[in-house]
Amino acid sequence: MRKKIISPLSFLCLFLWFTGAARAEDGYRLWQRYDLLQNKPLVKEYQKALGQLVVQGSSPTLSIIEDELSTGLSGLLGQPFSAAENPEKKNVLLVGTPATSPVLKGLGLEDKLKAVGKDGYLLLSRKAGGKNYTVVAANTEVGALYGSFHLLRLLQTQQRINNLDISSSPKTQHRILNHWDNLDRTVERGYAGFSIWDWHKLPDYIDQRYLDYARANASIGINGTVLTNVNANSLVLSEEYLKKVKALADTFRPYGIKVYLTARFSSPIELGKLKTADPLNPEVKAWWKNKVEEIYRHIPDFGGFLVKANSEGQPGPQNYNRSHADGANMLAEALAPKGGLVMWRAFVYDDKVPDDRHKQAYTEFKPLDGKFLPNVMVQVKNGAIDFQPREPFHPLFGAMPKTPLMMEFQITQEYLGQGTHLAYLAPMFKETLMADTYAKGKGSTVAKVVDGSLDNHYHSGMAGVANIGNDRNWTSHPFGQANWYTFGRLAWDYNLTSEAIADEWIKMTFSGSPTLVSTVKQMMMGSREAVVNYMTPLGLHHLMGWSHHYGPGPWIKDKPRADWTSVYYHRADEKGIGFDRTRTGSNALSQYAPEVQALLQNPATCPEDVLLWFHHLPWDWKMKSGRTLWDELCYKYSEGVDSVRAMQKDWDSLQGQVDKERYQQVKQYLAIQEKDARWWRDACLLYFQTFSKRPIPQALEKPAGTLEEYMKIDPKFAPGI
Amino acid sequence: MRKKIISPLSFLCLFLWFTGAARAEDGYRLWQRYDLLQNKPLVKEYQKALGQLVVQGSSPTLSIIEDELSTGLSGLLGQPFSAAENPEKKNVLLVGTPATSPVLKGLGLEDKLKAVGKDGYLLLSRKAGGKNYTVVAANTEVGALYGSFHLLRLLQTQQRINNLDISSSPKTQHRILNHWDNLDRTVERGYAGFSIWDWHKLPDYIDQRYLDYARANASIGINGTVLTNVNANSLVLSEEYLKKVKALADTFRPYGIKVYLTARFSSPIELGKLKTADPLNPEVKAWWKNKVEEIYRHIPDFGGFLVKANSEGQPGPQNYNRSHADGANMLAEALAPKGGLVMWRAFVYDDKVPDDRHKQAYTEFKPLDGKFLPNVMVQVKNGAIDFQPREPFHPLFGAMPKTPLMMEFQITQEYLGQGTHLAYLAPMFKETLMADTYAKGKGSTVAKVVDGSLDNHYHSGMAGVANIGNDRNWTSHPFGQANWYTFGRLAWDYNLTSEAIADEWIKMTFSGSPTLVSTVKQMMMGSREAVVNYMTPLGLHHLMGWSHHYGPGPWIKDKPRADWTSVYYHRADEKGIGFDRTRTGSNALSQYAPEVQALLQNPATCPEDVLLWFHHLPWDWKMKSGRTLWDELCYKYSEGVDSVRAMQKDWDSLQGQVDKERYQQVKQYLAIQEKDARWWRDACLLYFQTFSKRPIPQALEKPAGTLEEYMKIDPKFAPGI
Repeated sequence: MRKKIISPLSFLCLFLWFTGAARAEDGYRLWQRYDLLQNKPLVKEYQKALGQLVVQGSSPTLSIIEDELSTGLSGLLGQPFSAAENPEKKNVLLVGTPATSPVLKGLGLEDKLKAVGKDGYLLLSRKAGGKNYTVVAANTEVGALYGSFHLLRLLQTQQRINNLDISSSPKTQHRILNHWDNLDRTVERGYAGFSIWDWHKLPDYIDQRYLDYARANASIGINGTVLTNVNANSLVLSEEYLKKVKALADTFRPYGIKVYLTARFSSPIELGKLKTADPLNPEVKAWWKNKVEEIYRHIPDFGGFLVKANSEGQPGPQNYNRSHADGANMLAEALAPKGGLVMWRAFVYDDKVPDDRHKQAYTEFKPLDGKFLPNVMVQVKNGAIDFQPREPFHPLFGAMPKTPLMMEFQITQEYLGQGTHLAYLAPMFKETLMADTYAKGKGSTVAKVVDGSLDNHYHSGMAGVANIGNDRNWTSHPFGQANWYTFGRLAWDYNLTSEAIADEWIKMTFSGSPTLVSTVKQMMMGSREAVVNYMTPLGLHHLMGWSHHYGPGPWIKDKPRADWTSVYYHRADEKGIGFDRTRTGSNALSQYAPEVQALLQNPATCPEDVLLWFHHLPWDWKMKSGRTLWDELCYKYSEGVDSVRAMQKDWDSLQGQVDKERYQQVKQYLAIQEKDARWWRDACLLYFQTFSKRPIPQALEKPAGTLEEYMKIDPKFAPGI
Repeated sequence: MRKKIISPLSFLCLFLWFTGAARAEDGYRLWQRYDLLQNKPLVKEYQKALGQLVVQGSSPTLSIIEDELSTGLSGLLGQPFSAAENPEKKNVLLVGTPATSPVLKGLGLEDKLKAVGKDGYLLLSRKAGGKNYTVVAANTEVGALYGSFHLLRLLQTQQRINNLDISSSPKTQHRILNHWDNLDRTVERGYAGFSIWDWHKLPDYIDQRYLDYARANASIGINGTVLTNVNANSLVLSEEYLKKVKALADTFRPYGIKVYLTARFSSPIELGKLKTADPLNPEVKAWWKNKVEEIYRHIPDFGGFLVKANSEGQPGPQNYNRSHADGANMLAEALAPKGGLVMWRAFVYDDKVPDDRHKQAYTEFKPLDGKFLPNVMVQVKNGAIDFQPREPFHPLFGAMPKTPLMMEFQITQEYLGQGTHLAYLAPMFKETLMADTYAKGKGSTVAKVVDGSLDNHYHSGMAGVANIGNDRNWTSHPFGQANWYTFGRLAWDYNLTSEAIADEWIKMTFSGSPTLVSTVKQMMMGSREAVVNYMTPLGLHHLMGWSHHYGPGPWIKDKPRADWTSVYYHRADEKGIGFDRTRTGSNALSQYAPEVQALLQNPATCPEDVLLWFHHLPWDWKMKSGRTLWDELCYKYSEGVDSVRAMQKDWDSLQGQVDKERYQQVKQYLAIQEKDARWWRDACLLYFQTFSKRPIPQALEKPAGTLEEYMKIDPKFAPGI
């Protein structure tokens, strides 16, 4: 370069231009992008306030804290950030626990610390011994790690850090990702490539991805991961695979992440060569006891088992005429001495019972309330059917006061456009969490059931079915990262608003530019409702294509099970459309508290966004808009398409404000989403029209193809198996 | 940052430190890393000499040239590199063709250009009109692109660029990657994750990987890619998939890369609903003719078909008692009007014929020489069995003078440690290419058969079975990238030495540090021989584990086909070991030229590295070393393990000289390789010892386990299907 003095400013420009030239933005870094902040005065302020980093003591977790803060602060502040064993400068960033840091112990934070518990932390500004401390304090090293990520987030989102007085602790105790990953690296309902677990190379090869996975999860407070698919393979419990699991557990431990496995109920037969897996059989109990001991020999802090039993063909206690409680308790007994958990899924529906699937989990589990051992949690999906774009909250929430119920959300967008549609799920998660079960009167929200506060449970937890794969950017759609982030943030604190979470994520993932932030936030906030509208408006559900679940299939019928078809759920006929779940129908409503029933049973008071979930109504039913039900349906479907087009306009307006790689990616995905939205709208309206016999309102765009053409579309090799 | 003047030097340090902090080295950039060169004087020299970039005219390929050179030079030289439409500065980098650049046309390079042909290029230093030009000139824009990458390589490898006088053109016309990728994204013999072709998202989503794949291939002169597995699915020829293929073809076109597909011979039945696929049936011919026209409507420069027929269960002309020529010519007729090629694989062996597999391709194809249409190439593997660590050259080379034979190398290391072993394949490729067939007397090398010069063929080509997957670094093992690179470089010029290619690749991929270059080169140069020694020394072959081919399985027997077992190939018994392929045995030797036979038929003159390939010899046969065959076998297996341990030492010595991510990756892989090498050595020696009844020489390490233990090892879910 030409010999001349480089001013800090030109240096900055050069640096920015360089890093651009040096690497394309591949999205791999998720929200943990530590590039130089663009707000120079603030950067100066941060540099001054933080001075030097002091992390006293040494341990794997403390090293992680020091590395993360050094790398993060160096990148964000644009100069190497010095670390020291003892405070030397006037301004010090002090991180640790009273046990690991004498200086921190000296600050007398005992009482404040007591209040934040095991995983919580404090972010404080403190003066002491003539020094100004920015303190990240916790009772545990993992708490200090969480606090360190919080501090980095404050900088990434460009917030003031003088006079800090933050204390934070998680609302739920177990914040766990569920990976539906198979041992052959296919991922059930995975849309971001294939499994990140490279079992063949384990235990000897530790992929950098495992470390970055742990970093990303720790940064949002996730403290557990179930490595394997709920449709389980018992092989993962074999000695050969436990060694591989141990390698992952050892990798994740310093990040505060426990490893869990799915336990195939018939493992004693497949691995143990026993004749039965009957939970009351002594040999079976002994086999599991020994297996659990073997597991803990490899993984002393093993988290426990997640079990899908007697559901969709999986083996379970009912094969031996035992109850789900018998099965869960047998495993719980084996795990109890080691402090392990059983997460027993309530997602069951009997292939003999022709009853409304909506009712079956409740029918099955409600009577078992109080029969589970203390280390059993029952894991309940947010809704009673299966992760639809909109479902009313699951009737089991509030119905099992004696049992800790774990929330199961689905982060991977099986029914919300999978890897190619932009659908920000925070509003959906919040909708369920804030729903009122009235179990103990008004204000008995699902959230209070889940966090254990309503019924004073020791254990509490949230599970999220991961959308993580080996795609370079982890989640296929760049905005899929926001749903992973959101799950962690809400599991930590469900009181965070969707807007606040979006705001954080956008600033950390893209930039702090006000127009960019507001535009992207607007796109995100409307995106889930857009999907509801172009797929399943007004409470419709389960209309998707067969098996791969990609695209519309309202015409699906005549399958092995009635409740695997679409016609079973929409019940469209000449008279009208919708599933009558009131007294005159399946009466699933009766599973809710009287206050909820009162609201929902009357189509006049039932919120229209779940109207057809609970009611079968005539095509000319008058909606609040004044339109007939048929016309409203047409308008809703069209609204969905229009919303996607609005997102496209918004995104186009950001050209130049987003790196060209991700700009291009999202632009292409939005084009796919717009095409798919029209596909959904046109296919569904043409199909329902064969019953309604009514025209699509003049004002609206007409379908491009014929129903026959849409019914012929059959995506081959759609992902997600 | 602190307000102070930053000197260029400290700026450099900061910059380097920053880019380090900004991103980890994930290997995604392959050998196309354009980071600031560490040789300051040379950087100044480059900056002076190249001055400004002038690419006149406009086209997709010209834009790619301008972008690549701007990005590359900016990164390598550490400052924005200016481009202009017309020469303004004194020193100019001028790139283009006489057709696109008036300035270049003015330099009068007609004669020099005539000599380099369609894909060739010139790199020249020229003075004209008082300016100093560094010229990259070619007859085609793609030639200019190749030349631009050559220039970048000169800088990446830190060579002088004053007084340039380079002209280069490829030895083979068709330089093609074969992807054994299935439509569900599994990859047959793929060890780097899954297919990079995301068929579900095509044609609407163009992954950045497709562009970077094209850049990488163009940078080494690869000009064709077969997208699909030779074990083919006819679905890829359907309208729905051709639209997806078109999207890839459109993406690759400006990089000079043609797209090819594998044609499943029974497609007329599966897609066309015909009753037969008989190549002489008029309906079948018509179907293919129409299908080809349909393909070219989508892809006007479609390359053609690669066909695996009547081999390992694939359908083919023999199902209708027609010859391979009948089948190939039928497709060739359909393709000829469009300029398309048929690449017909000679990898066939009949499941009825019990003859030595080594002989069957020759037996089948030799009589067909002269019967193929001009646009048919017969694609022959380097050896007669199947990509073993060492094979003598295939007897078909030199045996079909009237037919252009295409070389099929395997880049993916199916039998050389797959995704976890370091095996640099240049020496293996060169060994075959430089082998003398004596077809037209001494000096009739395989290379001259393949480049068409021996028999004056118009078409010539090399195919490489790709080792590319969706792993972040493309090839799983960082050194796998070297084999992709090597294939391209040798297809362009097989006279390049293995050392020279390694030298280039190391400097471009890691750094120019002399110790690093020499140490890594030493590791690479010995690596393939190491694999031969710990897997299949002295001409042994096909001893690998069943189906997944990972790890040793010399005991494999009693399978559906004798020639799918190991015992069939090593023939070990109380007397000795080896496959007698002389007159007293299968007489496969008779398929070679007399001079070759003369050398190989006598165990005393037969090179020992293929001794047991051609001869069954007693355990106490005296080797050149003076040892008995059994002892030599023991020493060779041990040598293999020792070589891996030497590589480990070499790599450890480079700590700090390689970025920590790739240092750690390779270190872990070498540990796996050492473990696997012992596994191979111990399992094979213990097994062969049951026949030799001789002790392992005292001096050597003894097996850790028992034969029974090794025979029990059964890797589950090994990759590569």
